Amino acid sequence: MSQAFPERSAPVRFASQFVSDERLWGRHMELAAIGAIADNGVRRLTLTKEDGRARAKVIAWARELGMSCYTDCIGNLFLRYCPPSASTNAHPVATGSHLDSEPTGGRFDGTFGVLAGLEAVQALQEFGHVPRRAIEVVIWTNEEGCRFQPAYMGSLAFVSPKRIEALLAATDANGTTVRDALAATAGCYAVDGVRSEPIPFGAYVEAHIEQGPVLENTRIQIGTVTSIYGIERFEIEVIGEAAHAGTTPLKMRVDAVAAAFRIVQEIGKALGDDGQIRFTVGKFDVEPGSATVVPERAKFTLDIRHPDQEFLNNVPAAVHASATSCGPPCEVHIRSLVSAPSVIFDLGLRREIDRIASDLKLSAVSIASGAGHDARYLAEHCPSAMIFVPSHKGISHNPAEFTSADDLGNGARVLTDLLVTLT
Amino acid sequence: MSQAFPERSAPVRFASQFVSDERLWGRHMELAAIGAIADNGVRRLTLTKEDGRARAKVIAWARELGMSCYTDCIGNLFLRYCPPSASTNAHPVATGSHLDSEPTGGRFDGTFGVLAGLEAVQALQEFGHVPRRAIEVVIWTNEEGCRFQPAYMGSLAFVSPKRIEALLAATDANGTTVRDALAATAGCYAVDGVRSEPIPFGAYVEAHIEQGPVLENTRIQIGTVTSIYGIERFEIEVIGEAAHAGTTPLKMRVDAVAAAFRIVQEIGKALGDDGQIRFTVGKFDVEPGSATVVPERAKFTLDIRHPDQEFLNNVPAAVHASATSCGPPCEVHIRSLVSAPSVIFDLGLRREIDRIASDLKLSAVSIASGAGHDARYLAEHCPSAMIFVPSHKGISHNPAEFTSADDLGNGARVLTDLLVTLT
Repeated sequence: MSQAFPERSAPVRFASQFVSDERLWGRHMELAAIGAIADNGVRRLTLTKEDGRARAKVIAWARELGMSCYTDCIGNLFLRYCPPSASTNAHPVATGSHLDSEPTGGRFDGTFGVLAGLEAVQALQEFGHVPRRAIEVVIWTNEEGCRFQPAYMGSLAFVSPKRIEALLAATDANGTTVRDALAATAGCYAVDGVRSEPIPFGAYVEAHIEQGPVLENTRIQIGTVTSIYGIERFEIEVIGEAAHAGTTPLKMRVDAVAAAFRIVQEIGKALGDDGQIRFTVGKFDVEPGSATVVPERAKFTLDIRHPDQEFLNNVPAAVHASATSCGPPCEVHIRSLVSAPSVIFDLGLRREIDRIASDLKLSAVSIASGAGHDARYLAEHCPSAMIFVPSHKGISHNPAEFTSADDLGNGARVLTDLLVTLT
Repeated sequence: MSQAFPERSAPVRFASQFVSDERLWGRHMELAAIGAIADNGVRRLTLTKEDGRARAKVIAWARELGMSCYTDCIGNLFLRYCPPSASTNAHPVATGSHLDSEPTGGRFDGTFGVLAGLEAVQALQEFGHVPRRAIEVVIWTNEEGCRFQPAYMGSLAFVSPKRIEALLAATDANGTTVRDALAATAGCYAVDGVRSEPIPFGAYVEAHIEQGPVLENTRIQIGTVTSIYGIERFEIEVIGEAAHAGTTPLKMRVDAVAAAFRIVQEIGKALGDDGQIRFTVGKFDVEPGSATVVPERAKFTLDIRHPDQEFLNNVPAAVHASATSCGPPCEVHIRSLVSAPSVIFDLGLRREIDRIASDLKLSAVSIASGAGHDARYLAEHCPSAMIFVPSHKGISHNPAEFTSADDLGNGARVLTDLLVTLT
């Protein structure tokens, strides 16, 4: 049995008291060794050998807890805890996240949600909880979307089975398809069955690091995620005329960079900063790119996010209006790269999370997620929610990503008691 | 003898009447064949085989006019016309320009100044002018500065012989030195002697295409160049912190691109647009350069030019002040790449050019040159001036560079009568 918190004198009342910070942290470190890179980083691209080895290790831990393992056509793994007490008619309650990383990722993004799920199952077993329905810890395939596009591929396929054929045909930079990568990875581990149709879930709760600075800055332990920001992402290309930087008076120029600056500024002014908006120019390419030539072309990305769908509905028109008024004499082409609606999480689940945090004497705050997650798609399928824990300095997708063992444990404790309530 | 302008009934009074537009145009086209690229372009990088072949052809034309050919330590060529009438004690009057091009250059930049010089010598010979001093048509080495830095290398070496050793050691992208490239090119042509010390010039006049749109837009035939713009060129690096584009509120960001935009805007506002300033952001690089990551670094060039040295003197302080006020919370590093003072051309020569244009019934206007030229350095050495002819649409350093045969001829005519006056 768990030796966690021997200093606590209060009687055991919650399953969460069996969560072991040491065990949870140790498993994070064991997984971080698979695909380890410099400075505590992780490179575990989806459906590579490293991803396969990480999956195999998690499956082995799950089997120790008496769980079985199923997969589906896109390689999602369902680690199923279904003791005799559970009704097989009732939809399972699901939790989980992903094991794939960015090319230079960290040890906690995704991994935490999977390991917190395992920890919760172990804790509620040790507590003696008798679930009335199955619990499944899911490892979603290709959440990051850096080897194969689109991101959130596994959860997308789960809620939109019609799209599976197209998703399996997606290729990476070397021309390898998802289908071939799946076949190559499948040999790393054994499963108990393949689900040709998804089994519906009764609820889905994903634990995740915040990947932003808000919880740490406000010294709050738990984020009850209200929603996932919607995204309007554009590629804007401004076409002017190359000219000699010395000989061409400003008024005679068709300067693509100057127009691009005006457009970005005008869009920023039109949208304002209500404290919730995210506004990022992350790429900015100039042609011909010489110090002494007035640029002919500027191509940049503009990523705009907001939790309020009404706000987002106005974004494309605002972008077009600003480009039309500030672009000339340059030509401007606007291409929508992503238009993803905001997602509101289930209010009942959010209230349960708040209640449990309060019972556990953990500080909690409602927070919107600016990052996308698999829970975005699951919310289309069943009541869904997310639990955030603090990210040091808000750093993520980076070897410096860090969350303390205590903070990870807090998230797993809230998840454990929530699973007890739901099952 | 020339058959130019047989329709003119007026008696021959000017040497310039012997300028042949057809011959001058034809020689441009012959040279354009050496290093020809698509769309009438020219690729004739300095001290390459193509440069050597172009030099050999011009030397051959010069020899037909009884001129001799000297070189110096940096490979400048001096095509010398020194009939018995010329005093060898008097400093020669020089004209010329360069034969090297940008990687995708045009047919007229530089070439025109060299060929106009030859045309002028031929015309004044045919007219029967008896010069009292030598005339030298100079081909300066490496004006463009795209294979070897710095630009204007030949004229710089001419006026600053102390710098020759360092200039000869400059290397191109393959590690070839100027010294080795000179040796490799020298075999293309024969010279009559090497000048270990520069022979001082009495005056220098360079004919050139405008490379800007002003003459064409105002339908004026001749530009009397008053000055060359001074340049303050900077590389500005802004260092922020990478962050997730979705999770980080704007107020918590250290966004390098947003800071760079503010800095550029503030500098632009501080300097204003008096119609003379040139202000160009020609390069703009972003790291890591992902649509979904708040940029950690932005590095851009800012090229600021003005004909008024007093204005330029204030530019570095204005750039630093704007960066200091708009950069934080980002770190900003400013590196000066070029700080070249403006140059004022000789007033006496400019008046002569205006008078000759008027005598020839050519419209003329005083114009400052936003582009640099070898005349920039010659002005430190002797009374110097430049004659501009229109550039179609102001396009230069591009295959589409174009000046009509008539406009080229007008420039050569003014140069011819000026050389007659000066010798």
